[in-house]
Amino acid sequence: MARIVMKFGGTSVADLERIRNVAQRVKNEVDAGNEVAVVVSAMSQVTNQLVGYCEEASPMYDAREYDVVVSSGEQVTSGLLAIVLQSMGVPARSWQGWQIPIRTDSVHAKARIADIGTDEISTRMKKGEVVVVPGFQGVGTDNRVTTLGRGGSDTSAVALAAACGADRCDIYTDVDGIYTTDPRIVSRARKLDKITYEEMLELASLGAKVLQTRSVEMAMKHDVRLQVLSSFEDKPGTFVCNEDEIVEKELVSGIAYSRDEAKVTLIGVPDHPGISAGIFGPLADTSINVDMIVQNVSEDGQTTNMTFTVPRGDLKRAIKLLESKKESIVYERMIFDSDVVKISVVGVGMRTHAGVAATMFEALAEKGINIQVITTSEIKVSVLIAEEYLELAIRALHTAYGLDADEE
Amino acid sequence: MARIVMKFGGTSVADLERIRNVAQRVKNEVDAGNEVAVVVSAMSQVTNQLVGYCEEASPMYDAREYDVVVSSGEQVTSGLLAIVLQSMGVPARSWQGWQIPIRTDSVHAKARIADIGTDEISTRMKKGEVVVVPGFQGVGTDNRVTTLGRGGSDTSAVALAAACGADRCDIYTDVDGIYTTDPRIVSRARKLDKITYEEMLELASLGAKVLQTRSVEMAMKHDVRLQVLSSFEDKPGTFVCNEDEIVEKELVSGIAYSRDEAKVTLIGVPDHPGISAGIFGPLADTSINVDMIVQNVSEDGQTTNMTFTVPRGDLKRAIKLLESKKESIVYERMIFDSDVVKISVVGVGMRTHAGVAATMFEALAEKGINIQVITTSEIKVSVLIAEEYLELAIRALHTAYGLDADEE
Repeated sequence: MARIVMKFGGTSVADLERIRNVAQRVKNEVDAGNEVAVVVSAMSQVTNQLVGYCEEASPMYDAREYDVVVSSGEQVTSGLLAIVLQSMGVPARSWQGWQIPIRTDSVHAKARIADIGTDEISTRMKKGEVVVVPGFQGVGTDNRVTTLGRGGSDTSAVALAAACGADRCDIYTDVDGIYTTDPRIVSRARKLDKITYEEMLELASLGAKVLQTRSVEMAMKHDVRLQVLSSFEDKPGTFVCNEDEIVEKELVSGIAYSRDEAKVTLIGVPDHPGISAGIFGPLADTSINVDMIVQNVSEDGQTTNMTFTVPRGDLKRAIKLLESKKESIVYERMIFDSDVVKISVVGVGMRTHAGVAATMFEALAEKGINIQVITTSEIKVSVLIAEEYLELAIRALHTAYGLDADEE
Repeated sequence: MARIVMKFGGTSVADLERIRNVAQRVKNEVDAGNEVAVVVSAMSQVTNQLVGYCEEASPMYDAREYDVVVSSGEQVTSGLLAIVLQSMGVPARSWQGWQIPIRTDSVHAKARIADIGTDEISTRMKKGEVVVVPGFQGVGTDNRVTTLGRGGSDTSAVALAAACGADRCDIYTDVDGIYTTDPRIVSRARKLDKITYEEMLELASLGAKVLQTRSVEMAMKHDVRLQVLSSFEDKPGTFVCNEDEIVEKELVSGIAYSRDEAKVTLIGVPDHPGISAGIFGPLADTSINVDMIVQNVSEDGQTTNMTFTVPRGDLKRAIKLLESKKESIVYERMIFDSDVVKISVVGVGMRTHAGVAATMFEALAEKGINIQVITTSEIKVSVLIAEEYLELAIRALHTAYGLDADEE
């Protein structure tokens, strides 16, 4: 017997037929003797419609009222799932955020969970009642409904799992797990049985959009075993867990990529203290998120070149800003390029093994792919290359690190 | 300065444009120096969709979960109206049933309001903040969301008006007031300036479906002045108020009709005590609502005839039931007719004036209309006639009681 939190996203509860499918999965866990809490998203498209209403009501809408409006989507799903479960003979009831309560701060529209009152729902679960909880919502210190930001239902599920001491938090979605890379690019991509929290964080923020980043951070912090699996197929998914649970660590677990990149280079920047702050301060002030930053060693001791990347959609704004600040920032000229992509290899194994970066550079060189920018972190090496080489590079790396699945 | 509760129905908040129109009306009251609480319904069709989901989830749905699902419609409207009001510079916030709280019993899906906590909202109103309340919903003794039954938003508005001592409760709808009769039948029907609670109750239950019956009863009990008016036109509506507020009482205020009638006559029923109970007990047990009942005086002291009406849709069930009980009920034969309608003249004036019924019978006789059944109450006379005479009868009575508007 285990205590399990199951979370189902919008496409998994898109209509009554799918909600019935979800209920069947819940029933299977109950029949197996498990205690179950279920976290549900809004039926797909509902949240978009509700957000659209708010924007139509006023582009400057009050986040507190926005929360009242958009939280209703999850509320509806929770009631419907409880009804379907009951009709299958499974004792169940819905619990809204304010009823449990799921207490959050009062930063409306992007609240953070403070704590969850689990006494009552724990008692119910022990009695065999399924606890159905709308994701994404809570109640603020102002006793008003709050929401956790888009994708917040993952976070709701992990927080609930942590609070009620669940043995596992299963995140049901429309993919069946975490892959070594995008299977649309590499047909021999493999589904991973296990991956560490750290790796998942690097992969998630790099574009493998399966789990909300915040939910993975929270799972790591509270030691919640996550499983990502498909709500449409009946097979195990990928476990996201602690490093010590993974016996055979791969050197590299996965290869991520991001097309949402643009490169800016400032040439002839005076090489003296404070120059970085002068460039990146104004960019941050206008909410432009700078990612890779490379500053070359000054050759003449006078000026240097500064290269960095921004999200592609922000490139124009970044250029405009830097041009308007030319007086204060000081540089000779600016060049930019939006036909670039970032490729990253991720793996906790590289903490203890040298040569991971070298393998990457060799594999790319062999295919004649030029590396424009390199950055590294403890468990990740990222390179910026021309976009036209994206697929070629990923396939080469996937093979180079021995990630290809066996031919069937 | 007055304190006003304004209530807007589903068609008045059907989309953002109409919600903006509602907000403008609220703003007008605020600008005039009034303290305002607004009660809103779900956007039209939303409740039907949500009820449809519940029925699809399970025909035997749990009323507690049904309440969670369907109450979300009003929640959405309340948030959106608050946003629009704020965008017009009017301080406003939404208050859900559990936040105020609007405490009800725990009879889910048709809860009754027990009391409303008005301290906080009263303070806010005094400060000039508009209090936006979703109609139809409350919180039960079990701390779960309850709903008041269809049309319950009228009741929410009246209860709120009573609780916070409002000077007036304005019910905005898609008609501009209460008419002497259906203007689709009588083009010279007049809009009434005032009508008593009692008259409104008789008219409402007879088919003039403008206000939920329960809301009128509650207004009468708590002395809440109601106004029924149009949300699409800018003119006064009809006040529903105490009799003593109406200086010039009309003998007859209005003429109502119902097509939802079918007549059953049992011939040769033994004339002894308990026979009525024997007939109407089984009908009540199968939830068939019997309306008019007439028992003729027995001619021979042995048998009598019993005539009554039932809703047209229940006629077949009633016939089947009575046939199956022929042994126990005892009657010679049964005749029935579903081509009948009920016409009622309503007026508090008839309490003190004789001759109202006589005028009715004369007017109908003059047109050659045969009266099949007559029933009377303190402020109402109802007759059952053949359906083909419906319009003719209403027009004749409208003229006979001097209700026709002046030619313009």
